[in-house]
Amino acid sequence: MSVTHPAGFVATGVSAGLKSSGGKDLALVVNQGPAFDSATVFTANRCKANPVLWSQEVVKDGVVKAVVLNSGGANCYTGAEGFQTTHAVAEQVASGLGIGAIDVVVCSTGLIGLANPRQNLLDGVDACVAALSADGGADAAQAIMTTDTVAKQVLVEGAGWSIGGMAKGAGMLAPQLATMLVVITTDAVVPAAELDAALRAATRVTFDRLDSDGCMSTNDTVTVMASGASGITPTAADFTHALTQVCTDLAMQLLKDAEGADHEIAITVLNAASEDDAVEVGRSVARSNLFKAAVFGKDPNWGRVLASVGTTAAAFDPADLDVAMNGVWVCRKSTPDADPAGVDLTAREVSVTIDLKAGTERATVWTNDLTHAYVHENSAYSS
Amino acid sequence: MSVTHPAGFVATGVSAGLKSSGGKDLALVVNQGPAFDSATVFTANRCKANPVLWSQEVVKDGVVKAVVLNSGGANCYTGAEGFQTTHAVAEQVASGLGIGAIDVVVCSTGLIGLANPRQNLLDGVDACVAALSADGGADAAQAIMTTDTVAKQVLVEGAGWSIGGMAKGAGMLAPQLATMLVVITTDAVVPAAELDAALRAATRVTFDRLDSDGCMSTNDTVTVMASGASGITPTAADFTHALTQVCTDLAMQLLKDAEGADHEIAITVLNAASEDDAVEVGRSVARSNLFKAAVFGKDPNWGRVLASVGTTAAAFDPADLDVAMNGVWVCRKSTPDADPAGVDLTAREVSVTIDLKAGTERATVWTNDLTHAYVHENSAYSS
Repeated sequence: MSVTHPAGFVATGVSAGLKSSGGKDLALVVNQGPAFDSATVFTANRCKANPVLWSQEVVKDGVVKAVVLNSGGANCYTGAEGFQTTHAVAEQVASGLGIGAIDVVVCSTGLIGLANPRQNLLDGVDACVAALSADGGADAAQAIMTTDTVAKQVLVEGAGWSIGGMAKGAGMLAPQLATMLVVITTDAVVPAAELDAALRAATRVTFDRLDSDGCMSTNDTVTVMASGASGITPTAADFTHALTQVCTDLAMQLLKDAEGADHEIAITVLNAASEDDAVEVGRSVARSNLFKAAVFGKDPNWGRVLASVGTTAAAFDPADLDVAMNGVWVCRKSTPDADPAGVDLTAREVSVTIDLKAGTERATVWTNDLTHAYVHENSAYSS
Repeated sequence: MSVTHPAGFVATGVSAGLKSSGGKDLALVVNQGPAFDSATVFTANRCKANPVLWSQEVVKDGVVKAVVLNSGGANCYTGAEGFQTTHAVAEQVASGLGIGAIDVVVCSTGLIGLANPRQNLLDGVDACVAALSADGGADAAQAIMTTDTVAKQVLVEGAGWSIGGMAKGAGMLAPQLATMLVVITTDAVVPAAELDAALRAATRVTFDRLDSDGCMSTNDTVTVMASGASGITPTAADFTHALTQVCTDLAMQLLKDAEGADHEIAITVLNAASEDDAVEVGRSVARSNLFKAAVFGKDPNWGRVLASVGTTAAAFDPADLDVAMNGVWVCRKSTPDADPAGVDLTAREVSVTIDLKAGTERATVWTNDLTHAYVHENSAYSS
């Protein structure tokens, strides 16, 4: 149930003194081989944090041997000094493990614009290296939490191989990509190029369709490492299917733990002219503060759904749209249909279905409601 | 100080029984000539309300003799029945005034998806026609309020001519265009084509740059009517300048009365490669829930500003951005500069300045903070 379940991986999480709470804040996940194939996707935000700038270079050859992650500070917009801190952390990991720094991915999360205390990190890396174990996955998952209320882990078993994963993320949770940190491990034999194809296929329909608050992070990183320790080579289809399961599970864990949320909302767009149209429409609804506040108020306000659909460039006839909430078709042909009073929004899980009647494609985008607790948490976060 | 200040206009506002409160909910503004030039801009939302579908036809010939506006229901996505209600209201106004229905603009505001009671509206139109007066502007401004807490009016005087205006809007307040109802009157002599050019020039830099909550309405309408009753023909430059003042003043009144807001935030983007780039960057920050929640919490969190800038396609170097809040340059060259503790966000008015260092263009986009009161108001609105 963690990144250390697949054979060939050790991990740990320690307290390096970055979090004022004194909690665990530094994690290390190490691939012990025999293979070191990897694939990584990063945030599409053009304002990227120092660890992303570093790690983009690390992943280019498809070889990653370790991922070191800290919470308690994003090391973003901290200038040359901040980049040197990232580099020093990678060198310290490399030195401790007897590998090259160019095979060490670095991830950071926390506030933007604050320098991370370098010596704390270097001492923490030493403590991590000393504490690495085949049971350390849970500690690692705990050490990367920020405003997360629960640690997020997953395990999917193949025939003689498995995929483990951990994730953090509760705010700045929007896609392109991912807006969170994720480390995935597998003992399957998967060459880097195939790993990359599988990872992009999986993230495209999972993390990339998660849009909790419309705010794209500067630090998103999703890294998958394949140790080959099982000696088994799954088919590309089997592996991609399992990896997509892993990403789906972690994405849903992120959604359920989103800052202040009362509801998880799945917006499914049917009969779109293209998959891109379906995603654009779903995302426009996912980013409507008025719709999200209405769900918080348990108000099936489908007018706010249509008002959002109308802001997109997708193909549809404005006079012929159908909308269902929790399976009740409250709007057909763009006019009121079933009584909205029949829509019970008490449960956390809410579904919205929009029929564009313009083609055969579909997509689901996931979001949360907009709550008092979200405003509270995000107005007080750095104070 | 109202739409009846310019010569040639009468107006009124009455209670037609649409608002459950019993308050005024139907307004009529009539141009008595001698000229009937007009210009109108509508919401860019593809999902348009019935009164917008009607009024788009009315304005095509540049002649508008009356605007009738109701609060208490948007008449949007109410089907053929709803369109017939809009048509019937226009006919009733026309019949009462002895003009053609094709010269009557209809505006509605309120909930989407609810049918407006037709007979109430028709009886209300009769009451309006009977009550029209040269002092009726204030009553009209009051009758179009929904969640507005104050009526919004403006007057700008020219040399022997004037422009009056009224507006409503407090939610679904985002541009392209306007997301509110506005009626502007002038007794200047301005042919319809010039009026149209002046109105588009004015709204482009005012209502179109107001983005309170990112949600575009289905009912936005801004109509200007010119009676020519002053007999004076201002220069195009003078008239456009005055009309822009009117639109700026009303836009700022809308901003200050936005639902639940604690702060008015002006986001100014400097040294952009193009004005479009400047607007795109400003709007991206205006739509960041995290940034808006931080301002509510009086937290000068410039990291959330840069994270939003990074999501745009504007020209800039991510490593060389400057950000000021209330004049304090908290970030220079994408690294921390002045201590954010020096930024006092106690006052309602907040300024954010972003220097892109990519050109010479600039723009300001206005928004509000994201507050508990916004969430409360919009989670309870239709229940």
